[in-house]
Amino acid sequence: MSHPHPELGPPPKLPEGGLRVTPLGGLGEIGRNMTVFEYGGRLLIVDCGVLFPEEEQPGIDLILPDFSSVRDRLDDIDGIVLTHGHEDHIGGVPYLLREKADIPLIGSKLTLALIEAKLQEHRIRPYTLEVEEGHRERIGPFECEFVSVNHSIPDALAVAIRTPAGLAVHTGDFKMDQLPLDGRLTDLRAFSRLGEEGIDLLLCDSTNAEVPGFVPPERDISGVLRQVFSSAQKRIIVASFASHVHRIQQILDAAHEHGRRVAFVGRSMVRNMGIARDLGYLKVPAGLVVDVKTLDDLPDDEVVLVCTGSQGEPMAALSRMANRDHQIRIVQGDTVILASSLIPGNENAVYRVINGLTRWGANVVHKGNAKVHVSGHASAGELLYFYNICQPSNVMPVHGEWRHLRANAELAAKTGVPPANIVIAEDGVVVDLVGGKAKITGKVQAGYVYVDGLSVGDVTESSLKDRRILGDEGIISVFVVVDSTTGKIVGGPHIQSRGSGIDDAAFAAVIPKLDEALARSAQDGVAETHQLQQLVRRTVGKWVSDSYRRRPMILPVVVEV
Amino acid sequence: MSHPHPELGPPPKLPEGGLRVTPLGGLGEIGRNMTVFEYGGRLLIVDCGVLFPEEEQPGIDLILPDFSSVRDRLDDIDGIVLTHGHEDHIGGVPYLLREKADIPLIGSKLTLALIEAKLQEHRIRPYTLEVEEGHRERIGPFECEFVSVNHSIPDALAVAIRTPAGLAVHTGDFKMDQLPLDGRLTDLRAFSRLGEEGIDLLLCDSTNAEVPGFVPPERDISGVLRQVFSSAQKRIIVASFASHVHRIQQILDAAHEHGRRVAFVGRSMVRNMGIARDLGYLKVPAGLVVDVKTLDDLPDDEVVLVCTGSQGEPMAALSRMANRDHQIRIVQGDTVILASSLIPGNENAVYRVINGLTRWGANVVHKGNAKVHVSGHASAGELLYFYNICQPSNVMPVHGEWRHLRANAELAAKTGVPPANIVIAEDGVVVDLVGGKAKITGKVQAGYVYVDGLSVGDVTESSLKDRRILGDEGIISVFVVVDSTTGKIVGGPHIQSRGSGIDDAAFAAVIPKLDEALARSAQDGVAETHQLQQLVRRTVGKWVSDSYRRRPMILPVVVEV
Repeated sequence: MSHPHPELGPPPKLPEGGLRVTPLGGLGEIGRNMTVFEYGGRLLIVDCGVLFPEEEQPGIDLILPDFSSVRDRLDDIDGIVLTHGHEDHIGGVPYLLREKADIPLIGSKLTLALIEAKLQEHRIRPYTLEVEEGHRERIGPFECEFVSVNHSIPDALAVAIRTPAGLAVHTGDFKMDQLPLDGRLTDLRAFSRLGEEGIDLLLCDSTNAEVPGFVPPERDISGVLRQVFSSAQKRIIVASFASHVHRIQQILDAAHEHGRRVAFVGRSMVRNMGIARDLGYLKVPAGLVVDVKTLDDLPDDEVVLVCTGSQGEPMAALSRMANRDHQIRIVQGDTVILASSLIPGNENAVYRVINGLTRWGANVVHKGNAKVHVSGHASAGELLYFYNICQPSNVMPVHGEWRHLRANAELAAKTGVPPANIVIAEDGVVVDLVGGKAKITGKVQAGYVYVDGLSVGDVTESSLKDRRILGDEGIISVFVVVDSTTGKIVGGPHIQSRGSGIDDAAFAAVIPKLDEALARSAQDGVAETHQLQQLVRRTVGKWVSDSYRRRPMILPVVVEV
Repeated sequence: MSHPHPELGPPPKLPEGGLRVTPLGGLGEIGRNMTVFEYGGRLLIVDCGVLFPEEEQPGIDLILPDFSSVRDRLDDIDGIVLTHGHEDHIGGVPYLLREKADIPLIGSKLTLALIEAKLQEHRIRPYTLEVEEGHRERIGPFECEFVSVNHSIPDALAVAIRTPAGLAVHTGDFKMDQLPLDGRLTDLRAFSRLGEEGIDLLLCDSTNAEVPGFVPPERDISGVLRQVFSSAQKRIIVASFASHVHRIQQILDAAHEHGRRVAFVGRSMVRNMGIARDLGYLKVPAGLVVDVKTLDDLPDDEVVLVCTGSQGEPMAALSRMANRDHQIRIVQGDTVILASSLIPGNENAVYRVINGLTRWGANVVHKGNAKVHVSGHASAGELLYFYNICQPSNVMPVHGEWRHLRANAELAAKTGVPPANIVIAEDGVVVDLVGGKAKITGKVQAGYVYVDGLSVGDVTESSLKDRRILGDEGIISVFVVVDSTTGKIVGGPHIQSRGSGIDDAAFAAVIPKLDEALARSAQDGVAETHQLQQLVRRTVGKWVSDSYRRRPMILPVVVEV
């Protein structure tokens, strides 16, 4: 298996007749999926998603792929294929379209409806091309064929891309539920046909490659829901992802069977379920869904609330209920169902919500104590089937952290793909398919681009490093006016702190040290403001370290008179 | 089941002949376990541990129980029973002994050795009383009997406490491995005997009450280790907890069988394994353990490194290896085993380490892909056995977050403990056992006490709130000298920022706004420095919010001349 070399340089010119594949996101992380295909000087993009920040990226709203390698070539882009409507596949589109608004978006009906709703908030009206499974569309030099795949949102598509360089297949996110609620299978017949034609490069979802076995069918959840609904005495509150139409469908069905009404809570939940209902993806019996305001008129055992917040997001309804900071007050006997995954990194937040709800007496049903969630990504067992059906010449695992990519590569190797033809790339690593062989040839810029408030890209790694220090240790600001010839302090020092845990009164102890240090430096002829600021920083820093064994940030302002 | 009422006040005087139980830590959280027993005006403490901070407590080193409810009564404390040597049971002892150094510590041989080593670092020589299973010791009015229990550290004890108020049993942490490596079982015969005598109040470990079934035997891991050792080509690096003597024993045994030498890396690992070896808990074949410096002389396939860092701690050896920031450079073919649990909240850090190691070509074996860890706490199946053997009159779940306490309470109820006799308390909630019935009677102070650097308790919730704002949004400091009669700025403004993502040059735009605001306030006769500072804060804050949609902390210094 080829790994990217840490010292990769920019790629050479793509040989004529070659296909270049450059992942700008999603390889080395779960999120901000984006892959650029290049043939004959033209570009086709598959997906353009966002990544959600971790605690190492404090205060950040979203993380985008770095568009710099395509920024000078916006006119070369023939289209953006969107495999499905999840944020980690479509969330970056508004930011790319800000740079050029008329790049066509290609996707299924639901996917386009979701991205259009999102673009409306950004006041962008996109050019779109609706496709469905079985369709073939020529997009520039790229002959695309769309294949139905099964995922945790309806209407997901894989895309087969034919160029004279060969046949590349990008799965997008997928699993292989053999009893899907909507009857729409991952189309293994189509993949068999593509396999017989000869798949030169398979880009395959790695998310669950470490997980042995098979994902149970989504419909298995309905039995568990029924059981919970049967024994619930009072209100039922269900938290789930706002795009998981089939999960919500099962909740609606259970509510209907048990004579309860349903209200949707939360902007994204209301919006997405409206779209899914209008387009026929969500079947809602007449009178079942009511406005949340009318719930007070119903007895507790006829109520179901469906909300977001299943990941412990602090501003979502569910967290606020757990903190008694929401109009819906949890009482002894309420049932809360977290019908969703627990995304790694969210454990503390989610358990905080579960503990809060439990403390008020709610019976909390979650993934940890009942089968109320199944994953949307193929596990190892399914991936083995998939490789055996596709029998690709070259494999490039996508969508995953390093551990997932490597596990997926090992599965491909087990089914007989020659290890030399398995390319483990990461974001920015350029893979060229030339003469039927995929090879790493270089690397382009593919760092994190941070969205914070209105700005995109202004917050840098260095600002984040400052935030981490500020957040861990707090800050001491020191203002002092110095007579530059004597070194005497003639104004201030004004010393203030936030978050250091040091009382402002304690700073009296450092003033003699500052006096002494500044006087000595004047004797030594030190006069540069910059040097004096360094001196103040060092003097206060040493005092704090000696007295408290802490290292807050120190922000000195020295004014010389 | 009784829940604590949110508006509980201080408890009434304890009726004569009653036993008062006050948990100061460990109920509502996993960590800082500490329970105070009171009878006839005297106090007995069981455990005094620390809690490790979450991301919500940035920069904090440790969290202690709040000692305020016993601070005025230090002379009433007859002893501190330590059930075992884990940090969450002994880590707070140095801080309590700082307040009174001669409170006797009672525990088993290994437990006392570990606390003594820790106290030596704090330069405290404690009074100790070594006990073992089967021992009875009268400690003040408390007739204590110690019972062997099985946990993830050797030599753990439960304690039965007899007073005229009745028989209370505190399990400490325990599980019921039926094939323990050292042959030391959780002594169900002793618990049966206590049950027949009549347990009036059982305080029982809740950590795994939500987990169905039984914890597999520790020795099951050895087969998995042997398999990994057999197929390893190069070095083997094992990360585990520095106190898990039996886990390390199994690693030593596997190394010995496969002709490898072992070096311990990391201060706590070296220290604890030295203690365990000296006291006979760790059996080390001659010549097996070598100094880490001699490893370079050995071929890669004869080397095992045992280190800490299994929770992704950034400064530990393992994280530094993952970042190529350690003398041991991971290469293709090395095997890394994380033979430990994954404590909730550490997922991101641990996966970051796994991804880093994988990226350098290591084969990483962890809980997620092999059975290299078993828990130290009894699962639901074991707890049912335990309740049926003990048949206590009253139950008080301990050691757990709300979800664990409640799950444990439900298990007790299922075995026939009357729900009215099950008390779900939380930290600070006072439970009195009077006339054979346990009841919640009040609440004492039991908040978090933060250790940060040298200080204990100086960092408050308000400092932490500041840190969270600083960490998410950064800071802008504004220094300005104002002529208080005209409102004219006569010095500065000096505006600097850290972590806001706003370039210092951009602040030129806010200066006219400051000029205008200060001039207007002078016209309005505003002159108080405090008010002017507020004005500066508001003016800059509004500008940042309008221009960037962000809310950094603003720290104004206004000097009036």
